[in-house]
Amino acid sequence: MIVFVDMDEVMADTYNAHIEQYNQRFGASLTKEECMGHEVWQKVPLEHKDTIWQHYLEDGFFRTLRPMEDSIEVLKELNKKYKVYVASAAMQFPNSLLEKHQWLDEHFPFIHWRNRILCGDKQILRGDILIDDRSHNLEKFKGRPLLYTSPHNIHTNNFERVNNWKEIADELL
Amino acid sequence: MIVFVDMDEVMADTYNAHIEQYNQRFGASLTKEECMGHEVWQKVPLEHKDTIWQHYLEDGFFRTLRPMEDSIEVLKELNKKYKVYVASAAMQFPNSLLEKHQWLDEHFPFIHWRNRILCGDKQILRGDILIDDRSHNLEKFKGRPLLYTSPHNIHTNNFERVNNWKEIADELL
Repeated sequence: MIVFVDMDEVMADTYNAHIEQYNQRFGASLTKEECMGHEVWQKVPLEHKDTIWQHYLEDGFFRTLRPMEDSIEVLKELNKKYKVYVASAAMQFPNSLLEKHQWLDEHFPFIHWRNRILCGDKQILRGDILIDDRSHNLEKFKGRPLLYTSPHNIHTNNFERVNNWKEIADELL
Repeated sequence: MIVFVDMDEVMADTYNAHIEQYNQRFGASLTKEECMGHEVWQKVPLEHKDTIWQHYLEDGFFRTLRPMEDSIEVLKELNKKYKVYVASAAMQFPNSLLEKHQWLDEHFPFIHWRNRILCGDKQILRGDILIDDRSHNLEKFKGRPLLYTSPHNIHTNNFERVNNWKEIADELL
């Protein structure tokens, strides 16, 4: 059985890092709580909207993200029971490609390079389960979609939801 | 209809570049003709076998490959008729990830970043046609496999074969 796992906001805490980077660059004090139910860019002043993504294109951002709580331990077990593939829509940010590979080497070395996918669009994935925080990825998936809770998707209701890695363990292990 | 196209030895002339690099580094004069029916490493002295791959791990090799004859023109047309995705098993060579992305930007800018896949193992691809030079990729594919002729696969008989991009055009356009 093949399980695909998204990276950003599922394995890696991209959302909080994004807010931190924004606050640092713009001297702001946005919190995750204020963003609940929204994308970060929707909660910043109009004049910041165009440049808020800048750090996605710069060296280091994706390399230094924190792994999500319990993700390492649970993925280690999932990896024994399923064919686990990491599937990240990374192509929009070319500098992230090597950084994501190295980040996996550091935090998830048990995910073999054969089981890593960097793509643009996930509709080409053939497998049984996809754990992702983005509806547009889950909608096109032909297997069982699992929505991983992220601040931006708390109002999404049309998918089976997992709120954290402990719940993934309960569901799949 | 989704068509996956492999990069090395299908879109990019990796085999000849591999021989050229080998000859340059080892002062050898191996030719493609001598290699027919084999992998390059099978045709070099025993003491070279371990280091013959060195340039795959160094900067520049994948960035400077020549596109295969007629590949640009035919892919441009295929891209109008099908959903074309480039699918390259690149994960073994981490430095190739960005280089392959940039190489596509240079030679195949009409292949959108959404339609680019860098992976380790192609059994996770869901689509209709896969054009690839490697049997192990084609064997696990659930759609229609097309074997693209490369010196190493000339004795492979169990797949429908395309010898060059003109034949791909005849077959699919």
